[in-house]
Amino acid sequence: MTRPLICLTLGDMNGIGPEVGLRAVEALGDDASIVVVGDKLVVEQAASLVGCRRDLHAFDPASGKAPPPGRLSFIDTGTGAGRSHTPGRSTREAGIDTVVAQDIAFALARKGQVQASVMGPVNADSIALSGMRKTAMDPSLGSFYLFLVSGTLRIAHLTDHMPLVEVCTREVKQARVALLLTTLHRCLSAWGMPHPRIAVAGLNPHCRGAEDRDEIAPAVSQARAAGIDAVGPISPDSVFRECIDGRFDAVAAMYHDQGHIALKSWGFSAGTTVFMGLPFLHLTVAHGSAYDIAGQGKADAAPMIAALKLADALAAGRGFGEVS
Amino acid sequence: MTRPLICLTLGDMNGIGPEVGLRAVEALGDDASIVVVGDKLVVEQAASLVGCRRDLHAFDPASGKAPPPGRLSFIDTGTGAGRSHTPGRSTREAGIDTVVAQDIAFALARKGQVQASVMGPVNADSIALSGMRKTAMDPSLGSFYLFLVSGTLRIAHLTDHMPLVEVCTREVKQARVALLLTTLHRCLSAWGMPHPRIAVAGLNPHCRGAEDRDEIAPAVSQARAAGIDAVGPISPDSVFRECIDGRFDAVAAMYHDQGHIALKSWGFSAGTTVFMGLPFLHLTVAHGSAYDIAGQGKADAAPMIAALKLADALAAGRGFGEVS
Repeated sequence: MTRPLICLTLGDMNGIGPEVGLRAVEALGDDASIVVVGDKLVVEQAASLVGCRRDLHAFDPASGKAPPPGRLSFIDTGTGAGRSHTPGRSTREAGIDTVVAQDIAFALARKGQVQASVMGPVNADSIALSGMRKTAMDPSLGSFYLFLVSGTLRIAHLTDHMPLVEVCTREVKQARVALLLTTLHRCLSAWGMPHPRIAVAGLNPHCRGAEDRDEIAPAVSQARAAGIDAVGPISPDSVFRECIDGRFDAVAAMYHDQGHIALKSWGFSAGTTVFMGLPFLHLTVAHGSAYDIAGQGKADAAPMIAALKLADALAAGRGFGEVS
Repeated sequence: MTRPLICLTLGDMNGIGPEVGLRAVEALGDDASIVVVGDKLVVEQAASLVGCRRDLHAFDPASGKAPPPGRLSFIDTGTGAGRSHTPGRSTREAGIDTVVAQDIAFALARKGQVQASVMGPVNADSIALSGMRKTAMDPSLGSFYLFLVSGTLRIAHLTDHMPLVEVCTREVKQARVALLLTTLHRCLSAWGMPHPRIAVAGLNPHCRGAEDRDEIAPAVSQARAAGIDAVGPISPDSVFRECIDGRFDAVAAMYHDQGHIALKSWGFSAGTTVFMGLPFLHLTVAHGSAYDIAGQGKADAAPMIAALKLADALAAGRGFGEVS
């Protein structure tokens, strides 16, 4: 079986993205097939910083050929951003390079010329300075759920950055919860988990609330009737521990902090975020651009290595086993 | 300095409370001064089950004398509950014995005849069957906050079993948050932590919400103006990890699951609950009556030992250091 081809964007060029990206590519060697997207000078500087000695190879995705082994395949964003490299600072040039790199990556993924996209840590201020759009995501890609992975703890979030009162009054509705469960089941199956066991978190303490009874419980019944192995609602304070201990493969969480508190309190080493529900596989590391240590060559590449390994495993349909 | 006298109730007699209670008393020996409150037969049976060979001593709190070393001091509830001992089942007799034992303990604590009260794991169904009241707590004691302790993670909860929407709309108000911070500071100081560093959790993701800005932030300012070292609001998904890592001594959490998810996901070994804000020191183990293994002598007494050690340390004003 051919290795999936992964497209790696380096995130904000003034953060730790380029160095952890190149260090991860070097560490993985030919265990993953990766093409880096970045400004040529940024790629060269980062390769030099981390001691990557492989020859650069300008990759042409339209050629239909796999990247040659033993070399560092890349696609130049052509923004010339490297000329204004200022580690630790948000700049317009960095933001432009981030957005251009992402659009190249998303286009490759849409066309199926890569089987997964991994995004380095971006910086929201740089993207805002670019004036191109508000986030690294292309709005035309549509909506998605944040699916966080850290070891055996895997969490799909119904909502993201939304006031908690709106989560309660507007978002925890049967149809929305049912759609999350359907999407989660479909994705886990496609990624190589044929019979995923899904735990569904309640909203209120010990699930003793109207939303638990009138919205979440019927959504679980609806999912089960459709053949999905969903269980719940389960008390929010114990459901994540049950997943950590292996009794479920993933948790459907009702709100951002429900899942994020569990993940960060548990340990949060090498966390990876999957943008679940997009038309292609897109992941990012669950840490920031870390301006305070950028450009010093001391950033830990373990989360980026974990993200690339996970992208390779999910794109190949091998599941989470070997990377958890 | 005299050891604080601790009153230990055994919780539901048909659960694991009696056996973990007696095992803990035996394990602590003369490292703590404890008087057990329970039906005499229940105490004798549990002592026999765990191999406690100390002679029973009927303790008279009015005597003003300390319990004699080397013996098992107890106060008989006089309910005769032991005659209907049925491990693993909720019964009216067990509920009555639970409530009577608690009322004896609360009376001793109110009068200052004991310096702390530790409650074994009670059973809500048994208490309901007693017809005496709804919980083990005496309603006349007034309101309290749940303060959970597990290692370096210490969490005071603004709200308990309340629907999340009501937390948002009704409870997260400046005056209420300020009162929690004042109480937490006062208790931590009294327990032997002279300059407690208090982290205040926000309500919404990354504290980007109206309640964070308009209610919690002013409450923190108000507390700081009163000389309390409170910091916040801090993003709910990182504040508990910061406490685990030792940057704060305690967290003020806005709702039940915020704190409970952190604690249970982190590890939750030997957790203890303090009923913070009562007129005396009252604690309980943070596990249930475990009917499924009751009466078999195999229940783990570590959480009960931790609770008794914590009661001893806090009542003596020695803080958390030695028990965390």
